[in-house]
Amino acid sequence: MSEFDLIRRYFADIGPVRPDAALGVGDDCALLEIPPGQALAVSIDTLVSGVHFFPDCDPERLGHKSLAVGLSDLAAMGAEPAWSTLALTLPAVDEDWLRSFSRGFARLSAAHGVRLVGGDTTRGPLSVSVQVHGLVPPGGAIRRSGARPGDRVFVSGTLGDAGLALRQILDGADVDEALRGRLECPEPRVRLGRGLRGLATAMIDLSDGLAADLGHVLQASGVGAELELARLPLSPMVADVVQRAGDWSLPLSSGDDYELCFCAAEADAARVEAIAQAAGCQVTAIGTLSKVSGLRCRLPSGDLLETGMTGYDHFSAG
Amino acid sequence: MSEFDLIRRYFADIGPVRPDAALGVGDDCALLEIPPGQALAVSIDTLVSGVHFFPDCDPERLGHKSLAVGLSDLAAMGAEPAWSTLALTLPAVDEDWLRSFSRGFARLSAAHGVRLVGGDTTRGPLSVSVQVHGLVPPGGAIRRSGARPGDRVFVSGTLGDAGLALRQILDGADVDEALRGRLECPEPRVRLGRGLRGLATAMIDLSDGLAADLGHVLQASGVGAELELARLPLSPMVADVVQRAGDWSLPLSSGDDYELCFCAAEADAARVEAIAQAAGCQVTAIGTLSKVSGLRCRLPSGDLLETGMTGYDHFSAG
Repeated sequence: MSEFDLIRRYFADIGPVRPDAALGVGDDCALLEIPPGQALAVSIDTLVSGVHFFPDCDPERLGHKSLAVGLSDLAAMGAEPAWSTLALTLPAVDEDWLRSFSRGFARLSAAHGVRLVGGDTTRGPLSVSVQVHGLVPPGGAIRRSGARPGDRVFVSGTLGDAGLALRQILDGADVDEALRGRLECPEPRVRLGRGLRGLATAMIDLSDGLAADLGHVLQASGVGAELELARLPLSPMVADVVQRAGDWSLPLSSGDDYELCFCAAEADAARVEAIAQAAGCQVTAIGTLSKVSGLRCRLPSGDLLETGMTGYDHFSAG
Repeated sequence: MSEFDLIRRYFADIGPVRPDAALGVGDDCALLEIPPGQALAVSIDTLVSGVHFFPDCDPERLGHKSLAVGLSDLAAMGAEPAWSTLALTLPAVDEDWLRSFSRGFARLSAAHGVRLVGGDTTRGPLSVSVQVHGLVPPGGAIRRSGARPGDRVFVSGTLGDAGLALRQILDGADVDEALRGRLECPEPRVRLGRGLRGLATAMIDLSDGLAADLGHVLQASGVGAELELARLPLSPMVADVVQRAGDWSLPLSSGDDYELCFCAAEADAARVEAIAQAAGCQVTAIGTLSKVSGLRCRLPSGDLLETGMTGYDHFSAG
């Protein structure tokens, strides 16, 4: 089977046909028509075998996750997903693997109305690069730089679940399947992100851990934050680890949460809550921004935690 | 040095600042503003170490080539390059390597007015994925499917030079530096491609070899072709190999030419020539399309060559 047959078979028809994609897989370029008054939001991410996922991971879940991480970036801009491209590097042609991978990719594509419009398949060590393309009114895009002193800091979902799953896997322990699902099948918070247009002053998605990612918002906005750790939304399993070990690194600095962290005026807290409910998503206020730069974490005891913590770094802790 | 510092230092300011990129490197997404009446042409390509380039290749040339292959796809649509994204996977942080790679990438970006607007840097086996984004009036895009019986087939430049360089390298022979440049530093035919809007009936860029790539045009257009091999534009070195061995595989089926192959009405041949001259690019008519499907090659002797030849296949001949 040639490269071309392979692409054609598994990737020619993923996601809904969209009239705004004039040309998709099968020419030198895909041709996309952006509606007037919309900006295009784009983000590219690579997942590498042995670094971002285990070589024996379920290919269907990998297909899901390789798109999910990009959709999470679109969510963090308040953008509406529209198209994707896929650059897949494979050590060999394995039809079972391709079938499963494309099924996971296709299911999430369908759920968010994303059409796969182009790609490249090459031979080499297993890795997946996906670029997502979304639409957002230029003034509606939620950047990292708009947060103001006095804003409340919010996060969606719960923190540290993926990190705990990874820890269990690396420890050779029994892995809780719900936690494993959080690591391998993150749900991008697209509806929530879009709903927060005009309301969130700044937003980021949590891929490298709360401390590091919120740090980017603080830096871009020129503000600081004080978090109340007692308020961090934790699953019972993560809460148990934190309580027993007195170690907050799971919710603060483990990666792969793919939740949204955003800032909004105190006065808008009720609107934020209503939008979260409409999006079917839990949202929790975890702290407050101030003019004093840096990130401070108040422990449940009332003490302030020294935070030299940074998040997952692909080169130092990969 | 963290991933973020690294990206910031070498990739934060590549290509000219463009007012239509509202947000570039350093947020969850880049935000691009597409002018009204233009469609967006996108293409993604991956170059893998040991497959598409030698592990010890000059990083500056790799930076050039990783963008050039995408610009060649834009050229083949008649699109005007505008933005790029870069997903770089590196085994380790090597500042010398990054400096050289980014210099090659930056120089070609500047030459074509392409702004690098986003990316991802990860740890893993060396590979480079680049997505290019170009602009083209929707009706002006040149597809693979518009060729008609009676059209002439043209190619730009010369064929088989990169293939001969690769052969010399693999044979351990002295490598001609001009040929090596054709392999490692291809010049995307952007001006020629754009100039052919409204004139070329179909176009493709030659990455997998003339026979395979023209084959895609023939299939998409529902036509066949007869090529006159004596007319193929060959450098003296490739011509010598063909003549001595009587083997046409270099110009017909070696990869990495990154020339354009296109079709146009016989009556437009003079206009094609004028556009090629304006683009500073040689163009040669090499054959004619017909209703009879398939690709036939007439040898200089007058005999028809049986063509079971296909091009470079990343999975079978990689």
